[in-house]
Amino acid sequence: MNADVINNGNVAFMVITTVLVFLMIPGLAFFYGGLVPKKNTLTMMMYTFISIGVVTVLWTLGGFSMVFGNDIGGFVGSPTEYFMLNGVDFTVNPKYGSSIPFLMFFMYQLMFAIITAPLMTGAIAGRITIFGWVKVLVLWMILIYFPVAHWIWGGGFLSKLGFVDYAGGTVIHATAGFSALVGVLFFGKRYVMPKRDYGNINLVLIGTALLMFGWFGFNSGGALASGETAAIAFTNTGIAAGFATVVWVLISYSKTKKFSMVELATGAVAGLATITPASGYVTPQTAVFIGIIAAVICYLCLEFSKKMKWDDALGVWGVHGMGGVTGSILVGVFAASHVNGVSGGMDQFLIQLLGVAIVIVYSVVVCWIIFKVCDLSGSIRVPAEVQEKGLDKEYLLEEQLND
Amino acid sequence: MNADVINNGNVAFMVITTVLVFLMIPGLAFFYGGLVPKKNTLTMMMYTFISIGVVTVLWTLGGFSMVFGNDIGGFVGSPTEYFMLNGVDFTVNPKYGSSIPFLMFFMYQLMFAIITAPLMTGAIAGRITIFGWVKVLVLWMILIYFPVAHWIWGGGFLSKLGFVDYAGGTVIHATAGFSALVGVLFFGKRYVMPKRDYGNINLVLIGTALLMFGWFGFNSGGALASGETAAIAFTNTGIAAGFATVVWVLISYSKTKKFSMVELATGAVAGLATITPASGYVTPQTAVFIGIIAAVICYLCLEFSKKMKWDDALGVWGVHGMGGVTGSILVGVFAASHVNGVSGGMDQFLIQLLGVAIVIVYSVVVCWIIFKVCDLSGSIRVPAEVQEKGLDKEYLLEEQLND
Amino acid sequence: MNADVINNGNVAFMVITTVLVFLMIPGLAFFYGGLVPKKNTLTMMMYTFISIGVVTVLWTLGGFSMVFGNDIGGFVGSPTEYFMLNGVDFTVNPKYGSSIPFLMFFMYQLMFAIITAPLMTGAIAGRITIFGWVKVLVLWMILIYFPVAHWIWGGGFLSKLGFVDYAGGTVIHATAGFSALVGVLFFGKRYVMPKRDYGNINLVLIGTALLMFGWFGFNSGGALASGETAAIAFTNTGIAAGFATVVWVLISYSKTKKFSMVELATGAVAGLATITPASGYVTPQTAVFIGIIAAVICYLCLEFSKKMKWDDALGVWGVHGMGGVTGSILVGVFAASHVNGVSGGMDQFLIQLLGVAIVIVYSVVVCWIIFKVCDLSGSIRVPAEVQEKGLDKEYLLEEQLND
Repeated sequence: MNADVINNGNVAFMVITTVLVFLMIPGLAFFYGGLVPKKNTLTMMMYTFISIGVVTVLWTLGGFSMVFGNDIGGFVGSPTEYFMLNGVDFTVNPKYGSSIPFLMFFMYQLMFAIITAPLMTGAIAGRITIFGWVKVLVLWMILIYFPVAHWIWGGGFLSKLGFVDYAGGTVIHATAGFSALVGVLFFGKRYVMPKRDYGNINLVLIGTALLMFGWFGFNSGGALASGETAAIAFTNTGIAAGFATVVWVLISYSKTKKFSMVELATGAVAGLATITPASGYVTPQTAVFIGIIAAVICYLCLEFSKKMKWDDALGVWGVHGMGGVTGSILVGVFAASHVNGVSGGMDQFLIQLLGVAIVIVYSVVVCWIIFKVCDLSGSIRVPAEVQEKGLDKEYLLEEQLND
Repeated sequence: MNADVINNGNVAFMVITTVLVFLMIPGLAFFYGGLVPKKNTLTMMMYTFISIGVVTVLWTLGGFSMVFGNDIGGFVGSPTEYFMLNGVDFTVNPKYGSSIPFLMFFMYQLMFAIITAPLMTGAIAGRITIFGWVKVLVLWMILIYFPVAHWIWGGGFLSKLGFVDYAGGTVIHATAGFSALVGVLFFGKRYVMPKRDYGNINLVLIGTALLMFGWFGFNSGGALASGETAAIAFTNTGIAAGFATVVWVLISYSKTKKFSMVELATGAVAGLATITPASGYVTPQTAVFIGIIAAVICYLCLEFSKKMKWDDALGVWGVHGMGGVTGSILVGVFAASHVNGVSGGMDQFLIQLLGVAIVIVYSVVVCWIIFKVCDLSGSIRVPAEVQEKGLDKEYLLEEQLND
Repeated sequence: MNADVINNGNVAFMVITTVLVFLMIPGLAFFYGGLVPKKNTLTMMMYTFISIGVVTVLWTLGGFSMVFGNDIGGFVGSPTEYFMLNGVDFTVNPKYGSSIPFLMFFMYQLMFAIITAPLMTGAIAGRITIFGWVKVLVLWMILIYFPVAHWIWGGGFLSKLGFVDYAGGTVIHATAGFSALVGVLFFGKRYVMPKRDYGNINLVLIGTALLMFGWFGFNSGGALASGETAAIAFTNTGIAAGFATVVWVLISYSKTKKFSMVELATGAVAGLATITPASGYVTPQTAVFIGIIAAVICYLCLEFSKKMKWDDALGVWGVHGMGGVTGSILVGVFAASHVNGVSGGMDQFLIQLLGVAIVIVYSVVVCWIIFKVCDLSGSIRVPAEVQEKGLDKEYLLEEQLND
């Protein structure tokens, strides 16, 4: 016990930020669940809810260790070092927070691990079986999330290069967003396109509320201490979300002459995903600019995605993938050294560009292999007749009773 | 960087309380959205959700500065001092929190600014266009909220007089509640009265839950430190809500011989709005009394409102306006100096009375002008035929699909 | 004022954990409300929501004092000592938290008191009138909750024996869970069994999300300080929930060949109820094991309950009653002294067994008397015709409009 070095304020801060990220998990489920037809709502939410259990188990049995254990050749952490929380207890591990129990770091990072993979399910809504998703989830975590998180946050080769990602623009949004695109191409279009796009907009808004609420913890918790950097990341989160929302609504209104709750929510998420990697490195003035640029870029990416006739049902690639990428690259331009020691400039910009490119290529290739292997080991595709009658009736004990 | 003066516990406290207030914003949207007919639910929620973006932009571009910038003649703060967060960074500004980054104060107060104006939309439900609301929102913030908040919290003339308002009974609930009354008189009755009052009571209760949850942060965060005053304000919040709920349910049950979820929720909100200005100045024993009195007064005000045939759809004037006013005046009677340095008594009572009267008169007059000007610049009224078919179908891309 | 001994970090921690527990109250209402037929949803939620007001009043008027006031013969605390918060203020009471205002302890414990009794309403769904429930609630708190909480947490005879219960496995889950069983036997089966089990699964999942979110505070807040023990309890909560969910889904899937959102949620709650009493006394490795065992035991108990043809509508006895009991006994086996000073072993095991047995017998006997007395003083049973048409139509001003 190192009671003397524990800072109660910082532990309280980790408690808040960790539960905030936790609540984003059901928040994502509600956001996605409400955006699909009612007949698929529960299945959609199951993809995310089941990740809570599955990833907690993986994380305990070596996943955490693969990210934060001793570096093996820059590529992955030693899976045995922290296996079953060996060496992870209520004392401080100064590598991961100088004044909090190592356990709090374990839990905070667990929430990130849980929420990442389900992000991609929005893209392939209506096309993957629940059982198939569980297979993909397990492999995706082991082969993509744990290594990539190690590269960037666990002392792997990208962090050694100087690549930075404050709260997961690359580790989370780019990996999941580009895996989403792989999924769209792998599964192809839905046989049965929904006549109405949204099954339950109230549910979408409940999800949006929890996502925005939690995102404040998502971006600020990485400071591992409730001090200056946390305050900056917290502020940048709110500012980028606000400006992105306004710009997005303006673009959308100018095109359709109508307001839209879904467009408003999408704009907020675009701003949040884009500020994520930059939140602890830039000034709030820059966050204004990043919020504006997030809305423009992500809106254009959604348009591009439609033009390509990709059936990315909920726009995951355009918002999360390209938002995360945009923010990750903008860090290289706008990071202000007095904020957190990282300076934007040509060098940092090129490092960010390289890092993002490596992560995208790796995610795309490995994710394709994962889908292929999972599909070969027993189809993970939803047949046309099940798409017609609805996935909930086929895969769940409950029918969807919310109609 | 003044790392030495930052108190991590207090920063953690500001993080919690700020996100708690944030969550009240969608909470309000759900509360109001569920209380109106289904055909108007999304529009109702849009009034509140759009405030997140619009007010964040206003706040950044001078709004915060108009409240907390250098005092100009007691009436408003200098809009340029903190324009674009100039001078607002992660160091301490001892005027606004002796041990937290000034940015946290900026963000905490932002949440108050976002939630205030939408309170009034409950009164004029079904009668104002979304575009019209955005025009009103912008002018209302600039001409009413920023100045009044400056008078009371930013060093303006009312604070110099000795007027106190702990968490916004006057700044928030009275300004919005009396603007609601102005709206009711300006817009007149709905052409089409809903046959059923409530579209979605589950949604109302989700909103109520988030409002109550967040209100603990709303009232305690103003301490800017997690110490004694925060503990008092926190406790008073829970106690007043509990007693007000019980008394309200008793009154309502004795009149109707039925229980009612909506009456219960309304009683809780009445207790919360009324304790708000007093929460950091009175003892918990007094909070018991304020909770009881809140239920009686606000219930009578709703009855009075009905008798006057005001079409205040969701009772905003009676609950928020009169609750805020009642609490603001009771501070003058019951403030206990050992709690936070303010003593109730004839002097303080008269100051509170005067302050509340000035704010009401100012809000009523200026709000009427705002509605008038906005309406002249292009009608902000919802035509009868749109009231009939529902506002969502007219103003939103999405139809309301929750039926 | 003892400003010098207040630790801001710990106060911030109490603020978070207290509001987290608060949010579990509506969370429980939504969880239960969604699991019953739509025609009974609002009544089901009313049972829980009304407890917020009623228990706040009881707690203020002597309830808190009956738990934590000076011990009277080991059985109950002096009801007058802290009557109306006499002696409960913003200074520290070192018996209950060495560095937080006594008020924060009052509020934290209030949330526990509010949520306990409503747990049992899931068992007797559709069979007790709202008015009848209010009568039961008041007596149950005074005769069961306040004494039992005193025995274990307030210095009563069980705590003197060495019985431990970290966050309420016995005080909360066993008392309510076995009272649920009494209710099932007292009220008998519903006359009208619902054709469809679940009225609104989205609402169930919103409730589940809030329960899981809040449970992190429920289990960790008891440390009254954001240090090592809090970190352990926090971690154990997440780990037990995760492992229990996975095991429960595996059992359920292997029996039905389908996934189920309700089964997943039930598994999570089982893990959480079971880890509750142990959360601050065992290592995270043990939490893995407790999570697994929770799923197996509670699943078997639900099967047993069905075999006995008990009409425990939402499985309260099997999940909360037996989960709480299981965890309380496992503390006696697995407590690790380096975690929090308590060692598992034969002595502790027998103490835990004895304590749990006493609480169960006391709860069962007294709860039966309470139901009997309440019923004699005017029927608390829902007549067959009201079960048929739905309780909401009979007891509430609002009809259930969510269909």
